[in-house]
Amino acid sequence: MSESQPESRVIRTQVGIVGGGPAGLMLSHLLSRAGVDSVVVEVRDPETIRNTHRAGILEAATVQMLADSGVDGRVLTEGHEHRGTTLRFDGQNHHVDFQDAVGQSVWLYPQNEVFWDLAQARERDGGQVFWSVSDTAVHDVDSDSPRITFRDAEGQEREIEAGIVVGADGSRSICRGLIPDGVRTDNFIEYPFAWFGILCEAPPSWPELIYTNSPAGFALISQRSDTVQRMYFQCDPDTNPEDWTEEQIWARLQECMQGEDGFRLKEGKIFDKTVLKFRSYVCEPLRYHSLVLVGDAGHTVPPTGAKGLNLAFCDVRVLAPALIGLFNDGDDSQLIEYSAKALERVWKAQNFSYWATNMMHTTEGENPFAQKRRRGELTAITGSENGRAYFAESYTGWQD
Amino acid sequence: MSESQPESRVIRTQVGIVGGGPAGLMLSHLLSRAGVDSVVVEVRDPETIRNTHRAGILEAATVQMLADSGVDGRVLTEGHEHRGTTLRFDGQNHHVDFQDAVGQSVWLYPQNEVFWDLAQARERDGGQVFWSVSDTAVHDVDSDSPRITFRDAEGQEREIEAGIVVGADGSRSICRGLIPDGVRTDNFIEYPFAWFGILCEAPPSWPELIYTNSPAGFALISQRSDTVQRMYFQCDPDTNPEDWTEEQIWARLQECMQGEDGFRLKEGKIFDKTVLKFRSYVCEPLRYHSLVLVGDAGHTVPPTGAKGLNLAFCDVRVLAPALIGLFNDGDDSQLIEYSAKALERVWKAQNFSYWATNMMHTTEGENPFAQKRRRGELTAITGSENGRAYFAESYTGWQD
Repeated sequence: MSESQPESRVIRTQVGIVGGGPAGLMLSHLLSRAGVDSVVVEVRDPETIRNTHRAGILEAATVQMLADSGVDGRVLTEGHEHRGTTLRFDGQNHHVDFQDAVGQSVWLYPQNEVFWDLAQARERDGGQVFWSVSDTAVHDVDSDSPRITFRDAEGQEREIEAGIVVGADGSRSICRGLIPDGVRTDNFIEYPFAWFGILCEAPPSWPELIYTNSPAGFALISQRSDTVQRMYFQCDPDTNPEDWTEEQIWARLQECMQGEDGFRLKEGKIFDKTVLKFRSYVCEPLRYHSLVLVGDAGHTVPPTGAKGLNLAFCDVRVLAPALIGLFNDGDDSQLIEYSAKALERVWKAQNFSYWATNMMHTTEGENPFAQKRRRGELTAITGSENGRAYFAESYTGWQD
Repeated sequence: MSESQPESRVIRTQVGIVGGGPAGLMLSHLLSRAGVDSVVVEVRDPETIRNTHRAGILEAATVQMLADSGVDGRVLTEGHEHRGTTLRFDGQNHHVDFQDAVGQSVWLYPQNEVFWDLAQARERDGGQVFWSVSDTAVHDVDSDSPRITFRDAEGQEREIEAGIVVGADGSRSICRGLIPDGVRTDNFIEYPFAWFGILCEAPPSWPELIYTNSPAGFALISQRSDTVQRMYFQCDPDTNPEDWTEEQIWARLQECMQGEDGFRLKEGKIFDKTVLKFRSYVCEPLRYHSLVLVGDAGHTVPPTGAKGLNLAFCDVRVLAPALIGLFNDGDDSQLIEYSAKALERVWKAQNFSYWATNMMHTTEGENPFAQKRRRGELTAITGSENGRAYFAESYTGWQD
């Protein structure tokens, strides 16, 4: 993927975007369709991002954004529509049919493929993206002419003069820190668990995701393709993936899935092991003068419930029209409302992620009351139409 | 209310019931209608129970049990049907219409009136109830002929020989302790808050209950009659009600209800102050040989969500046909299933009470993330049809 290389050191644009992940690229794509100019800078190169395995359950609204805005329809042909999911407890599967419950589906389509589709669309449409940049810094966000300085892939010093700078630079955002301490509130909690994730060469064990709560802890059985599967089990946050052998991993996963129904996972060679830490974080506000945060730069959720990317796209759905209004019509009213509006959904999603996490995981040494109450909750959710609808609506994404 | 006074010291019956509260009396009433003989013993006198103020939100199924089984239709004429409730947060009311959501109502009718209706029905039908007993003890529950010994109101030693003994003797149950340690599991959690409850002479401030989450903590605005109201606010479990003046109480309640809508409680003379402690407890199993537990003897819930009495009646709905099957048909199959079947609902209700408590209360010194997440949860519940239906179904009682 080649880079646009403007002649001058200083580039003028309307929206400078720090971060070329899915959120930044999607925003740039939508702005460009409305004739609003943007420039994206990203520290990584696109091949690295493309090859970093990331999970991907996409809400219907996320899929629609990719397909309807002309990014790519590949999600619809290569992604897998999941019309429901399974919550497993007491060693039994309890199916939640999303279509029955709320008339929605989700799509299994890895985030790194979403990224790739967006990167190719930006390339195709002549979008200006600087990959592999270094020394990125953002300046003067409390003025009307904020700037981004960086060194491009060739080592040349560059500067972007923009009307708005968008921080789409992920959970370790440098932009977030520019909201001063007295203005910024960091809302943060930690969890006493993490996920041990594997990729393995095996056929699918089940057509849809299975979220399992068992005496051995949580497990998530997911899929990648007909020959590659993604699975997770609950582990201590300090776990070193290298300490676990293939045999130990399969033994634990099978233990989590054990039940009267005799369910067995189809095993295969494990070729990727990783530990995902859990955190919930929300930055308030999401805008400070000429700086706006989207996606992980503004908020992170634990992986349970798969809200991360979807929430980033929700931000973009609110921010894109706000910036288009600002630059095309001189109307800043939507931009002023951006933070409050985006945060409304962020907190609902934070709650869902927290709730789903606590409902499915077992805390070591916990009061036995907790596990039995949790079983009562899982029964209430899966055993009634209303419980399934409440869960399904949150999982597939609240309709705006 | 007079007592039946059999001639002999020893009374033979089919079901000996320890505890003459609503659960014990309702069970005795239902058994008698099916020709199964029972005797109830109760340490208090009926006037004391009648005059002990107790809250009362009755699920539709509870109301139906009272009306349809011929106890009394007073609940339908003197009770107040509540077709919904209000969750208040951010200083705004959010109405949950139970009828819209799940086609059910609840009834406001105090527990002490439920008790009185049952006590009168037992009297009317010639039911054998010993009030004001002392020295109650239960023996031989691991045999087929368990016994209850006690001293009656006149001080005479008495003994009941039964086929089954039912422990309906409340949260401080003496029966529960007869399930041996190796068999009995006590599932228990405490909460860091309690409710300060008042009764006051004032007109209603609102036609239905209002559950409030505010920066000043939780409050519940309830009603008793056109001239007497019941209200609660969250307090420290160690609070002494005498330490609070009327002025302080009204100031706190008004603070909890403060909002942009200018809502004000109608104040009046406070004539009753009490502190309700919170605990969640479940005894497993609920049957041991010839001993069966119902209601608070087997499980207690915090008051949020008003599940206590309703859950006791649920137990009775399962137990009565089981005992009728045993004594009329010699079929013990339902009795064998009683514990598991009753506990299924108990744990759902425990979860609901725990969830509603945590969603509405503020813990002192808590992480600000918790309060904002809670607001996200309240938004998700009140802001969508599915959220309202999930809450309404739990509040009005799951349909069996």
